[in-house]
Amino acid sequence: MKNVKIGILGIGTVGAGVYELLNKHRNVIGKKSGIDIEIKRIADKDTDRSKLLNIPSELFTTDADEIISDPDIQIVVQLIGGTTVSRELMLKAIRNKKNIVTANKALLAEHGVEIFNAAVKEEMELGYEASVGGGIPIIKTIKEALVGNQIDKVIGIVNGTTNFILTKMTRESLSFDEALKTAQELGFAEADPHLDISGGDACHKITILSSIAFHSMVDMSKVYVEGIEGINKKDIQYADEFGFVLKLLAIAERRDDGMLVRVHPSLISKENPLAAISWEDNAIMLYSDFLGKSMYYGKGAGAKPTASAVVGDITDIALRITSKTEYNKNSYSFYQNLRQNDFDTSRTKYYFRFSALDKPGILSKIAGILGKNSISIASVIQKETEEEFEHVPLVMLTHEALESDTRKALIEIDKLSEVEGKSIVIRVIEG
Amino acid sequence: MKNVKIGILGIGTVGAGVYELLNKHRNVIGKKSGIDIEIKRIADKDTDRSKLLNIPSELFTTDADEIISDPDIQIVVQLIGGTTVSRELMLKAIRNKKNIVTANKALLAEHGVEIFNAAVKEEMELGYEASVGGGIPIIKTIKEALVGNQIDKVIGIVNGTTNFILTKMTRESLSFDEALKTAQELGFAEADPHLDISGGDACHKITILSSIAFHSMVDMSKVYVEGIEGINKKDIQYADEFGFVLKLLAIAERRDDGMLVRVHPSLISKENPLAAISWEDNAIMLYSDFLGKSMYYGKGAGAKPTASAVVGDITDIALRITSKTEYNKNSYSFYQNLRQNDFDTSRTKYYFRFSALDKPGILSKIAGILGKNSISIASVIQKETEEEFEHVPLVMLTHEALESDTRKALIEIDKLSEVEGKSIVIRVIEG
Repeated sequence: MKNVKIGILGIGTVGAGVYELLNKHRNVIGKKSGIDIEIKRIADKDTDRSKLLNIPSELFTTDADEIISDPDIQIVVQLIGGTTVSRELMLKAIRNKKNIVTANKALLAEHGVEIFNAAVKEEMELGYEASVGGGIPIIKTIKEALVGNQIDKVIGIVNGTTNFILTKMTRESLSFDEALKTAQELGFAEADPHLDISGGDACHKITILSSIAFHSMVDMSKVYVEGIEGINKKDIQYADEFGFVLKLLAIAERRDDGMLVRVHPSLISKENPLAAISWEDNAIMLYSDFLGKSMYYGKGAGAKPTASAVVGDITDIALRITSKTEYNKNSYSFYQNLRQNDFDTSRTKYYFRFSALDKPGILSKIAGILGKNSISIASVIQKETEEEFEHVPLVMLTHEALESDTRKALIEIDKLSEVEGKSIVIRVIEG
Repeated sequence: MKNVKIGILGIGTVGAGVYELLNKHRNVIGKKSGIDIEIKRIADKDTDRSKLLNIPSELFTTDADEIISDPDIQIVVQLIGGTTVSRELMLKAIRNKKNIVTANKALLAEHGVEIFNAAVKEEMELGYEASVGGGIPIIKTIKEALVGNQIDKVIGIVNGTTNFILTKMTRESLSFDEALKTAQELGFAEADPHLDISGGDACHKITILSSIAFHSMVDMSKVYVEGIEGINKKDIQYADEFGFVLKLLAIAERRDDGMLVRVHPSLISKENPLAAISWEDNAIMLYSDFLGKSMYYGKGAGAKPTASAVVGDITDIALRITSKTEYNKNSYSFYQNLRQNDFDTSRTKYYFRFSALDKPGILSKIAGILGKNSISIASVIQKETEEEFEHVPLVMLTHEALESDTRKALIEIDKLSEVEGKSIVIRVIEG
């Protein structure tokens, strides 16, 4: 059997999963692939991790250079988080002619151009399946299985923390704060949950996915991002009456004039298969010209699912090494340069909730402002309030309208003396 | 750009889809992969197909040998149905050192051992993604992405015709015959629907899927198969009250003593993501030790989705050819020889419906027979009948029981003078 030696940088949660998987399945992977994947060295700053995981001392080092500079090691599994040390080590490893497997989404989303260029320049392979959707093989699917398709749209539930919180709010009628607290207690949200609940993590993932789906490098800083911190359980309940479920969706669309990439809370029909993706699960729906609609569902995080993706990449690269496959730079080519459109140019249906004085004429005033801005109303419900409030909730669904028009209209509506506070806007996503 | 020439055998529905896809996306696939995939020749007995599809006359031939014997052609796309001519041509092509891409599930399910052996002997690649789940990349996922997992169970909705019929029966309360007629009118069922509704097509597919998931050649003739011809809409309605949806499931399980592969109508919880797979759509759920539960959803048939899978395979093989990848026979290795257990040894929960005389003591008689056979009842509902029948439907859900015990018990129950006709059994699938 052919032997391929790997080194692991960083033995945190995912690293421990990879270590466990390769210890358990090294022989079986050998039978399946003909390759013996051997962990030659594991580096981590924290020696306690080594003790905790019972890593033999000859395998462990605190010096990443011992892996990056080892001529025997052909694949470096880069599982260090963040974008500073991890970036330096990855670039150095590539320059040292190491193939790379990584799960670091932030690094690829922020420094993708630099890293892909470095890999292609040195003719090194770069596996990053674990960076999006945990163990769901979405990158392999887009790059390989769907090679004969033009992908027109990607819609993903790609953050488990927010999906857990929204599921909790929906099923148990909890407030955002209550649901976040439960998520933290159960380990589905970090002590500092900002990156997840703000949509930042989903933004990293859709930046990577849309770059490969459209073969065009997406600029993360131009992605529109709105998190779930402002979600009120009332809107989840009202939307339910219209047949909708609230999800944080990461959406990338190809349009005639380029592309549009965004992350925001969204209402989708209960009939949409994405509506059934609950708790911490992830799923990505692809819309492509030959396959049509297809969806990929599974665990989007965690040691074991992520290790599954990392080891899939390691094996793919090990197979290329041992079978002496010539390097193919096209596999990393972002040959298109699609214009990345501003979110203002988005066209979608909307859900609005206004808190308006319960008196004649107010609906006509609001409808007038919407109409003037080319937004037509599909349905309106005036909700009863439980207590004796002067203001009542006025819930509306619109036909398709332009984001910039919507913003203008809402600024004007929010200025009305009969309307209290800031109006609620949630986009309705079809398909 | 590197050029790879292919020949297509059979230009029916799928062939036409492949022809359309490569005409439309040949340049784009070139940019993505660095390879120019050129259709050198198309063979079909029926010259009318050539005219209908506007195939240039220099590309078309009625003689398959002109493709199989052409030294320029490196990949033969074998899209002829059936298991006789298609088998001969495929084996001959392999012996002539042609790599193969096929969508023929019956051929692989029935003659898999012979065909895989021939391919490995000649060191030819064999792509068959299109044989299961149309365009859903389930074979690539099992073989490549999940290489680091032990797959413990595969549950698939892999036949669009039966899923369409069952969805129609469920949503519109139609009888089987009415739903079949609609499916035929809309083109979702063939004029002779036998292979689909009997479960035969699903059996072909689960034979292929389980062989690769368990790395053990499954004998199709030992797969238990039950179709949907006997499904009564009443049972769909009663099951709905218990929170279940009826689906034709193809199921393969790994057990301590080997494996069990079967196809039968099944009740699943409405919470199961498979319950949301409706109409002609397909989906496959995989249960594996590191990734956990994952599901792959899309169009399981049709010219364009199937062409997507065929072209994915063509491109994969073309990449191996042009990058001079050494042949890896492990990729086609069924290295395990798992015992294929009899369906009698299956353990599952059951739904029963008895048509019983509405008089005291009958429930106790039935429960007694079940108890004697180690089957314990979880719940019972006696349904009202609309008209003045002597016999009333008695619907039961059981705890987990053994298939052989269930069969014995039902033979005895069906002999009771108070029970009319043959009792209804539907297996309840969890997970």
